[in-house]
Amino acid sequence: MIPDINRIKRPELNNKIMSASQAALLIRDGMVVASSGFTRSGDSKEVLPALAERGETEQYQITLITGASLGHSTDGALAASGALAMRLPFQSDPVMRKIINDGGLMYIDQNLSETAEHIRNGFLPPIDVAIIEAALVEDDGSIIPTTSVGNSAIFVAQAQQVIIEINEIIPTSIRGIHDIFLPEDATGRAIVPVTEPWQKIGQDSIPCDPAKIAAIVFTNRKDTPAEIATSNPAAQAIARHLLTFFEREIQAGRLTRSLRPIQAGIGKIADAVLNRLADGDFEHLTMYSEVLQDSAFNLLDAGKLDFASASSLTVSEACYQRIFEDLENYRHKILLRPQDITNAAEVIQRLGVIAINTALECDLYGNVNSSHIQGSHIVNGIGGSADFAQNSYLSIFVTESIAKQGSISRIVPMVTHVDHSEHDVDIIVTEQGLADLRGLAPRQKAVAIINHCVHPEYRETLSDYFIRACRRGGQTPHLLEEAFQWYLNLAENGSMKAEVEERM
Amino acid sequence: MIPDINRIKRPELNNKIMSASQAALLIRDGMVVASSGFTRSGDSKEVLPALAERGETEQYQITLITGASLGHSTDGALAASGALAMRLPFQSDPVMRKIINDGGLMYIDQNLSETAEHIRNGFLPPIDVAIIEAALVEDDGSIIPTTSVGNSAIFVAQAQQVIIEINEIIPTSIRGIHDIFLPEDATGRAIVPVTEPWQKIGQDSIPCDPAKIAAIVFTNRKDTPAEIATSNPAAQAIARHLLTFFEREIQAGRLTRSLRPIQAGIGKIADAVLNRLADGDFEHLTMYSEVLQDSAFNLLDAGKLDFASASSLTVSEACYQRIFEDLENYRHKILLRPQDITNAAEVIQRLGVIAINTALECDLYGNVNSSHIQGSHIVNGIGGSADFAQNSYLSIFVTESIAKQGSISRIVPMVTHVDHSEHDVDIIVTEQGLADLRGLAPRQKAVAIINHCVHPEYRETLSDYFIRACRRGGQTPHLLEEAFQWYLNLAENGSMKAEVEERM
Repeated sequence: MIPDINRIKRPELNNKIMSASQAALLIRDGMVVASSGFTRSGDSKEVLPALAERGETEQYQITLITGASLGHSTDGALAASGALAMRLPFQSDPVMRKIINDGGLMYIDQNLSETAEHIRNGFLPPIDVAIIEAALVEDDGSIIPTTSVGNSAIFVAQAQQVIIEINEIIPTSIRGIHDIFLPEDATGRAIVPVTEPWQKIGQDSIPCDPAKIAAIVFTNRKDTPAEIATSNPAAQAIARHLLTFFEREIQAGRLTRSLRPIQAGIGKIADAVLNRLADGDFEHLTMYSEVLQDSAFNLLDAGKLDFASASSLTVSEACYQRIFEDLENYRHKILLRPQDITNAAEVIQRLGVIAINTALECDLYGNVNSSHIQGSHIVNGIGGSADFAQNSYLSIFVTESIAKQGSISRIVPMVTHVDHSEHDVDIIVTEQGLADLRGLAPRQKAVAIINHCVHPEYRETLSDYFIRACRRGGQTPHLLEEAFQWYLNLAENGSMKAEVEERM
Repeated sequence: MIPDINRIKRPELNNKIMSASQAALLIRDGMVVASSGFTRSGDSKEVLPALAERGETEQYQITLITGASLGHSTDGALAASGALAMRLPFQSDPVMRKIINDGGLMYIDQNLSETAEHIRNGFLPPIDVAIIEAALVEDDGSIIPTTSVGNSAIFVAQAQQVIIEINEIIPTSIRGIHDIFLPEDATGRAIVPVTEPWQKIGQDSIPCDPAKIAAIVFTNRKDTPAEIATSNPAAQAIARHLLTFFEREIQAGRLTRSLRPIQAGIGKIADAVLNRLADGDFEHLTMYSEVLQDSAFNLLDAGKLDFASASSLTVSEACYQRIFEDLENYRHKILLRPQDITNAAEVIQRLGVIAINTALECDLYGNVNSSHIQGSHIVNGIGGSADFAQNSYLSIFVTESIAKQGSISRIVPMVTHVDHSEHDVDIIVTEQGLADLRGLAPRQKAVAIINHCVHPEYRETLSDYFIRACRRGGQTPHLLEEAFQWYLNLAENGSMKAEVEERM
């Protein structure tokens, strides 16, 4: 391809244009590499894949830090090539996941708000090379990002060298939808002055010392499209329960028809909830979220959503097309910001965000596991769920009550891994119903969860566990010798249901 | 006693003066009562005890909300009298604890920053009566608190009726050491503009509509004195490890000799750490904490500490004396604020607080239990530990490696209750050593904790568990069938150490 040098507004940088494989040679064994990319958007599509290729034949290992997950199976290819010694703060690649669980790659699963702070504080090794996808490079060397911001601003600020990947698919008119705000270093860190979701507090581009720009690579590959979340009756039922709850809160005067700024995690349930808001009697909704999926654009198009703030656009191919064809319409309705701003405790608290996240499973007392299977094996990671759960006005977790035709209950006596303690969980919703845990003590929470959330096939066993545990006493009654029995049943017999009584 | 009516600057309120038992009659069955009091300071010393007495002969039940724990065994007396249906957000009374664990009293153990927000949001039932200890009542009806602020400001704002307990022991010259800031309601909640520990952002007194003042009671009882924390060699060793760590951080350029604002939990280890700072080569220290203990005043007197912000003074009798005898000296060096300000996520993050809290136990991967024994029975509660652990610059947990002559290890394979997940724990210190968990993946954290923190008597068994778990795989390897075996050993044989191999 012939590079569109109009996208480099500082002509002296033209001599930095090179191929991806040339640029990849800047990365050497033992280096710390930081790359743009958040939930598979705005990621490196040339240099990291070239690096993975190099890993096939060459012996070297790097630490890779990103915003969140990469697209295009890049994480899988890098992990499989053996090029990675350490990976943070998030991933969602099946190949990489297996290597992590096998102990072949050290994975630091971080709260997504924290990576930038840990870098600023010097808690992580210094960044050698940053690779940043860009729509264009300004005349001062600053970088206009593409479909995500993630940690790119802090990466550029801290890296010794910067490799820019200019993506020609992205219209240069994207300039203006980013809001780049860099808080000071942790000593006397600045107030993050967002008081409304639509408030822009920073600048359009990521500041970059031109002398640090070591390579510019061109690409015309799109982001990996998000899978279209296929809704199911359970997701619809969960959405219905949640909307009934919102209606009740409006009746009680605690919410208005504009609700509060919404954060929604990725997946079919959150998607079903947002899509359902389009049909309901709501108005002037806003989002203060990590990721915008198709449903956000459906809500914008339906005139229900006034504004959406996030760190990335993770949408289907059709929605991607729609956004860039009608960018003039959307550009005043969305903002993409650094993930330490979208996920900032102070902003989430100040705006009073309603956080809707998916639980892998939750227990009798409202503790939530978002990340681990059988207490040991990680799926993706905690992501931003704790940033929002800990600081939101309402922390809502959604999950189907059962999985694998009922051989797994998503409501268990005790979760084997706690990502969110009962203190950070207000509402649990399954297709069975909604448990409102606000203002309840643990034993009362258990009754609400048993009555409203657990699947009927597991209700009696769970209730029996609870009653026997209460007899033994405690603020949060448990029977430690059988708290994990359902998991042991599952491992041995393929179902949590295996005859518990006989085995005791 | 003859009440000192000079402490009531609004003469029309003089006719509200009554005895504690009269005032207690304002409280009726089913009411929600909110009372001042935080870590046994500035609590109700007349009306709540009178209420407990009434509970002995009369059948009624109330919900009691406070700042944190009450002194004078008031919590125990109230619980024993059967007067309480519900208690939040914290307690530390042995009688009450037993009744809670027996299921006789619903206890909502809350993050101490959250109670005010839950009240403002209408997540808790409305407050009927607030009981507030005061040094004096101003001419506009506003209240000058005493040795704690806690949740008193929100209680007064929201209560239907207010009972004031004027404490004549407290010099009226205490006026000025409080900083009362009330954030807006959660919609468009205000920025909390503290950018330095010493910055006063509010007013001296708690605003109160005089029409709400239903009773004024006088008292001359002191706060329950804090027990003098008797240090031991283990606490000294922990303090030493932590100071060595601070020295290393200073060498690395991450900290200066002023460190960062310090938060220290209650107890002998935190006390030992602070006292040791007085001997070290530190200067211009500051505190942004929940509670100030004797050690804070020792540091002030030693000229090492420039300023201390907290929500209460919880000091020994001698220190109490010293503070009030020399109030002119201390008044410019301390501020007492509402607990949703001392524990505000945004301020803790902005100041970059170093948080030092005591763990009840922690596990191989750095998950911390602060509240429950054997997964079921609560000791006190989570308190403010999560507010600080989640938002601090450095989240440090301290614990002795063993308890009860070694029959209990404080480092276990898997904690049975998670108050702080590995994501919110940076440093674990026992008398054995210090594990710096920053920038480590879970398997690396386990190695650090085994090498530095666990007691030699348990090291081999824990190491063996870890190695066998790793063989089975996972990001956070566990053997679910034996993860709680140490607890079962303890319950059966009085020691975690019982022959594990034989029992498998």
